[in-house]
Amino acid sequence: MIFFQTHEIEAWINEDAPMVDLTSHLLGIEQQSAELSIKTRHPTRLTLMEEAARIFEILGARVVHCSHSGQDVDSDTLILQVVGRADALHRGWKVAMNLLEYLCGVATHTAQMSSQVASVSAIPLLVTRKHLPGMKKPMIKAILNGGAHPHRLGLSETVLVFENHLNIIGGRDALAHKIQAMKHAACEKKISIECDTLQQAEQAAAAGTDLIQFDKVPAAKLTAWTAQLKQSHPNLQIIIAGGVTADNVKAYAQSGVDGIVLSSVYHAKPADLGVTIQPLQD
Amino acid sequence: MIFFQTHEIEAWINEDAPMVDLTSHLLGIEQQSAELSIKTRHPTRLTLMEEAARIFEILGARVVHCSHSGQDVDSDTLILQVVGRADALHRGWKVAMNLLEYLCGVATHTAQMSSQVASVSAIPLLVTRKHLPGMKKPMIKAILNGGAHPHRLGLSETVLVFENHLNIIGGRDALAHKIQAMKHAACEKKISIECDTLQQAEQAAAAGTDLIQFDKVPAAKLTAWTAQLKQSHPNLQIIIAGGVTADNVKAYAQSGVDGIVLSSVYHAKPADLGVTIQPLQD
Amino acid sequence: MIFFQTHEIEAWINEDAPMVDLTSHLLGIEQQSAELSIKTRHPTRLTLMEEAARIFEILGARVVHCSHSGQDVDSDTLILQVVGRADALHRGWKVAMNLLEYLCGVATHTAQMSSQVASVSAIPLLVTRKHLPGMKKPMIKAILNGGAHPHRLGLSETVLVFENHLNIIGGRDALAHKIQAMKHAACEKKISIECDTLQQAEQAAAAGTDLIQFDKVPAAKLTAWTAQLKQSHPNLQIIIAGGVTADNVKAYAQSGVDGIVLSSVYHAKPADLGVTIQPLQD
Amino acid sequence: MIFFQTHEIEAWINEDAPMVDLTSHLLGIEQQSAELSIKTRHPTRLTLMEEAARIFEILGARVVHCSHSGQDVDSDTLILQVVGRADALHRGWKVAMNLLEYLCGVATHTAQMSSQVASVSAIPLLVTRKHLPGMKKPMIKAILNGGAHPHRLGLSETVLVFENHLNIIGGRDALAHKIQAMKHAACEKKISIECDTLQQAEQAAAAGTDLIQFDKVPAAKLTAWTAQLKQSHPNLQIIIAGGVTADNVKAYAQSGVDGIVLSSVYHAKPADLGVTIQPLQD
Amino acid sequence: MIFFQTHEIEAWINEDAPMVDLTSHLLGIEQQSAELSIKTRHPTRLTLMEEAARIFEILGARVVHCSHSGQDVDSDTLILQVVGRADALHRGWKVAMNLLEYLCGVATHTAQMSSQVASVSAIPLLVTRKHLPGMKKPMIKAILNGGAHPHRLGLSETVLVFENHLNIIGGRDALAHKIQAMKHAACEKKISIECDTLQQAEQAAAAGTDLIQFDKVPAAKLTAWTAQLKQSHPNLQIIIAGGVTADNVKAYAQSGVDGIVLSSVYHAKPADLGVTIQPLQD
Amino acid sequence: MIFFQTHEIEAWINEDAPMVDLTSHLLGIEQQSAELSIKTRHPTRLTLMEEAARIFEILGARVVHCSHSGQDVDSDTLILQVVGRADALHRGWKVAMNLLEYLCGVATHTAQMSSQVASVSAIPLLVTRKHLPGMKKPMIKAILNGGAHPHRLGLSETVLVFENHLNIIGGRDALAHKIQAMKHAACEKKISIECDTLQQAEQAAAAGTDLIQFDKVPAAKLTAWTAQLKQSHPNLQIIIAGGVTADNVKAYAQSGVDGIVLSSVYHAKPADLGVTIQPLQD
Repeated sequence: MIFFQTHEIEAWINEDAPMVDLTSHLLGIEQQSAELSIKTRHPTRLTLMEEAARIFEILGARVVHCSHSGQDVDSDTLILQVVGRADALHRGWKVAMNLLEYLCGVATHTAQMSSQVASVSAIPLLVTRKHLPGMKKPMIKAILNGGAHPHRLGLSETVLVFENHLNIIGGRDALAHKIQAMKHAACEKKISIECDTLQQAEQAAAAGTDLIQFDKVPAAKLTAWTAQLKQSHPNLQIIIAGGVTADNVKAYAQSGVDGIVLSSVYHAKPADLGVTIQPLQD
Repeated sequence: MIFFQTHEIEAWINEDAPMVDLTSHLLGIEQQSAELSIKTRHPTRLTLMEEAARIFEILGARVVHCSHSGQDVDSDTLILQVVGRADALHRGWKVAMNLLEYLCGVATHTAQMSSQVASVSAIPLLVTRKHLPGMKKPMIKAILNGGAHPHRLGLSETVLVFENHLNIIGGRDALAHKIQAMKHAACEKKISIECDTLQQAEQAAAAGTDLIQFDKVPAAKLTAWTAQLKQSHPNLQIIIAGGVTADNVKAYAQSGVDGIVLSSVYHAKPADLGVTIQPLQD
Repeated sequence: MIFFQTHEIEAWINEDAPMVDLTSHLLGIEQQSAELSIKTRHPTRLTLMEEAARIFEILGARVVHCSHSGQDVDSDTLILQVVGRADALHRGWKVAMNLLEYLCGVATHTAQMSSQVASVSAIPLLVTRKHLPGMKKPMIKAILNGGAHPHRLGLSETVLVFENHLNIIGGRDALAHKIQAMKHAACEKKISIECDTLQQAEQAAAAGTDLIQFDKVPAAKLTAWTAQLKQSHPNLQIIIAGGVTADNVKAYAQSGVDGIVLSSVYHAKPADLGVTIQPLQD
Repeated sequence: MIFFQTHEIEAWINEDAPMVDLTSHLLGIEQQSAELSIKTRHPTRLTLMEEAARIFEILGARVVHCSHSGQDVDSDTLILQVVGRADALHRGWKVAMNLLEYLCGVATHTAQMSSQVASVSAIPLLVTRKHLPGMKKPMIKAILNGGAHPHRLGLSETVLVFENHLNIIGGRDALAHKIQAMKHAACEKKISIECDTLQQAEQAAAAGTDLIQFDKVPAAKLTAWTAQLKQSHPNLQIIIAGGVTADNVKAYAQSGVDGIVLSSVYHAKPADLGVTIQPLQD
Repeated sequence: MIFFQTHEIEAWINEDAPMVDLTSHLLGIEQQSAELSIKTRHPTRLTLMEEAARIFEILGARVVHCSHSGQDVDSDTLILQVVGRADALHRGWKVAMNLLEYLCGVATHTAQMSSQVASVSAIPLLVTRKHLPGMKKPMIKAILNGGAHPHRLGLSETVLVFENHLNIIGGRDALAHKIQAMKHAACEKKISIECDTLQQAEQAAAAGTDLIQFDKVPAAKLTAWTAQLKQSHPNLQIIIAGGVTADNVKAYAQSGVDGIVLSSVYHAKPADLGVTIQPLQD
Repeated sequence: MIFFQTHEIEAWINEDAPMVDLTSHLLGIEQQSAELSIKTRHPTRLTLMEEAARIFEILGARVVHCSHSGQDVDSDTLILQVVGRADALHRGWKVAMNLLEYLCGVATHTAQMSSQVASVSAIPLLVTRKHLPGMKKPMIKAILNGGAHPHRLGLSETVLVFENHLNIIGGRDALAHKIQAMKHAACEKKISIECDTLQQAEQAAAAGTDLIQFDKVPAAKLTAWTAQLKQSHPNLQIIIAGGVTADNVKAYAQSGVDGIVLSSVYHAKPADLGVTIQPLQD
């Protein structure tokens, strides 16, 4: 679903052990066969499973069992089992565990938020580009496995005008004059404008924008504004970003908007996983 | 302090905008001069400032002001100001902001934890290798700027025996027989053993280990154990890992251990920063 | 506008001269100062100028003059002038020349096609992702400088259903049932369907698709179909791809479609440039 | 024959789909098994077949059939067949197709030119380093599979003196004094000089050069000059570069030169290939 | 034991043959099957065997026999045998041979030095970071296979104060005041100080340093100093660096120090290996 | 002369200090200004000076003095002086020193061998591709600065037939039949054959080879063979490889061959350099 290049996965391995694994070397366990098992410690939406498995395969181990990304598993479920040289398993252990704990945390929290939305509406949960630099691939895989969609992957794919653009071009009136030209030039894209007030949204809609992204508008006010805007501009898309939490997401999902944008899932509590390495009889 | 290679910083830029910045292109702001300012929204321990500045320099902008990493600043402080082409500033905006928000969050929380420890003790806060794969450099810079020290950077530099090693070699008795040989072979390193109980620690200390890393021992019990162990083995180092929180860190800092190990600062709440881009008269 | 990472430009230099420049070395010209000048041999729309300049800067030379990408210049115009060590100029010569000749050829041909369209219509020329693998950045910069827009940069940013998708899901009827769900899920994107016939387009439009991409439909037929489709679905976007040439592009531009998609500009005749290296008095 | 590093091929895949394949994801075809077939639409000299196959293997698909690079195939021939997950095939489709279409175009045109030469002479067709930067490996593989040879791969391997060198060292008289020293220093290499006139060539030959590369001399004149030069310098190699086309290549091949140098094959019309993706019963 | 990333090994292959293997191509041996055998020409301690094998596997050949790194073999022993296409074997030949000859030379010499030490003492041979830049991984693997240990892998893992640090902080008295603070801050590390004289060492030991690294002290004097220092500071570690040779290493090993540091093994005489490529009947 | 990409130099820095410089950090010298000086300890032919300087520039230091590569300097000469932050100088210290010591050792020994040859003959010293994998660029720069020439940079640039090729094609008779075809196909290259005996050389010369590379033939015998071969084939080039040492190189240089090939200079004794870091008054 997301393609991780070989060097991306190898870089994670190399980061943690650029040279010898000193402890394994001093203990002399390099030639022993062993088995590594990873189990959940609470219900978890899985992600990055295929990449965790590849870490061990790259290190020469063999994958015996690997649950699929996107799957929901209970507590105490075996999700990954690999066999190989003891030093290879020790080398991959924390890298795979860190990867899975952080990203399954993201996927699990995303799934909880998505499920709240889905319980009251068919609109999507959209996740922003506000993640740690360098982490776009794992984060996007995690939110997709959590049932959300990427809001915008970056600057090259969508048209979204922020206040910081308006400062440069001379404000919202100047923008209104440009919208038709932008729609023509980028006829395959939707033109989106960030708005803080109903008045700004009315102006943008009148100028022909395809989509309004409201920023930090409370759900009740948003419900009213959306109704009013959709009445006069039935094809207008409206989404809300900023201030969405587990507590208010259902209210937002029922506000009449077409999508809910948030970033906070990237910062979800990591999942808790147990990892055991046991000797194998050769 | 930490050296980021050119391609590491350029990869962050490229990740967010692999091709054109479509919005800036359609708005036609590419030739305009502008100024970008980043301000804090709460007291913050800064980090990754030099790297945020490099993002803009690589994009051809000029740094007018850049506060230093490691500095404490109040709310509403201008920490970075750059001037350049409007499209360059828009391209660097979110990359720099994401970098600073996540990592200053880590540094600020680390500083709070370090300061709690320092208020009662001279022992160090030690931060583990349990971070998102690929993020070691920014995370280590952040915790150093937060006043902590790296616990172990990875497998190649320190000797730390876990339960998962003991499983392979045949348990703690087998380990005890190996400690002297390990100390001789790695005479420049300290040999560290993870222990759960006082009995395990007594055995390891008797066998000559340099350092005991206790895992998830409550502070009161730890205080007693440490006193007992230090009495019989005055040169033994003792550190505690697992279960350390803002609520109990002072108690741990007074328990007599030589260091406190934790990972949770990597997952600190991101800092909140405000970014403004304004036109410049050429 | 497009950001080329340092290693991308350095790789071009390294590709042509992985080790010593044997001829310059044997001639002993390494310590001499010289000036390199690049002139056009016919009217040219410039592109990749900034990257050509960077090639020489990376090699330690100094840029004296560099015309801007996007500019139209006449024949016999000096577009790039650099001074530096003779061996540095020789090393950069063909790399910069090849880059400029191929890509300015693309930009110039794109500009000619764009200008044909613009002479009769306000719709955009859209250029596909059908370029040599590895060449996306220079090619996209060239077509942007030629006044066209990228059609889709790749698979991650737009939704475009081809016949090869329909084969998998069970044909156009199956697709029709999915369109509303796709529109909801990707509410910030337009859903686009490739069609060969009016009937296919009618079905897709009725199912709610945002955009029809016709494949290889003659201009006259396209004009009729577009009129008919727009009457019943006024918000529907229609674009045409396949078979657009310099001879028929005006007819397509007047067919009522919202955009014209083509790939052939990537394969434009390279521009012809003259490069001279002359000694400088130190 | 040419070794493509893993990251070179993976970069092509990543360029086209840096994140999710949005269309395949929204259509939900990720778990379906499918078969991709590539057929020729005209007689074609194949090249880059092994690399196209590797694209799919890297994506986890299995190669069922792959014709060899260097082979001549008729129209409507199945040249590549792979089976795998539908989303993997969609991800590799255009990358492989673009690679094959551009490069098989180069190989096919090279084969046509080579065959024209071979019909009247045993001399080689030599292809220059004047290709798109970054494309040396695929281009060289294509011209080798087309039956030509690389003229010079770059600056580090051969000695070829151009006018732009002469400008620096003080002209052809200065060069003549250096040729013996260059021959001694680089005794394993041939010393080559670009010449425009017979007089220049006579001077270079008299000074001991191993090879004359004439630039844009018409075939008739070249025939006469070659005869004259070979009479006085029987060991002298003579090659012609510049202005060679399909129309005149036979005349050049009969002019008495030892090789024909050209660049235009790099810009051959891409081959036309048909790609079909069909579902497989699991 | 040491993990070499795919691109690290592929870079070696690419360095030697960036494009076609011209000789094999002209000889037309690309489709022939062949077998490559590598034999020792003197008793050798093997290393980098797994990486040499990977070179050929990456090139599509199959490994028939591969002796293990760390093994001692006699003269005239077959250590690596692979079968594959003749051009693949020719491409890997010198790369693998150079790798093995240089590094087995290092391992063999290290083994000789280690064995001298082991004949009189249980202390380790410690090898510095003074190797060719870019060669850390192969060199560390070679010295580990030679029975030595890395002294310090680099700046990020150990604390070692040199004269060039003392110049900056104001000399040894200034250092003495800092040692306790350094020991607290880096409680998991040993604090090491380079000393030239007994007096310097006494001062450092009194200040609480964990380890003294003497620089170029003759063995007899070192024996006396070590005895004196250990008497007053029984837990103090002492190591010697500089001036250790095959002639005096036993004397140093008996001097009472805890480890012997040297760099010269990196510069050991390369091993001599014979490589044969023979045709296989298909 | 040789172009080192930014990431190549940055990788050297990163290899030695992947994270913080722990000693400098604990000593708190990061904000101090300092000066680093490198002096020779014996007469030295310099090389890699520009790259050593770039190491410090990349780390933010300023180069005050840098002697040129290729220069001969006496003992106790200041060859590099940089000023900057103390921690930057400490970080670059050993990386630059290792680079210079190993490679200046190569250059100095090459210069000695070249000068021996030059004292009796005008023929070149040619250095093989038998270096540590990954070290081609620094090694080739070093031997060029030592006054030698690269023998062959790798497989892609020259045609040299070894015994291991003959095994595949069926021996020397088979080769003789192929030489004319090879000469035609690669008309810009010299065809070279490795020979052990006069008879083999006679056969190759008769078949038209351009160059004979004798392997390990004693100088006296070589002198006789060369005279005999040159008499019958005056244009034939002859070079000798294998067994050339400082003791016999003059004899070989007078044997009548056209070039002397060796590898041993890559393994020259490293140069000895002194490095001092001193504080600067800010």
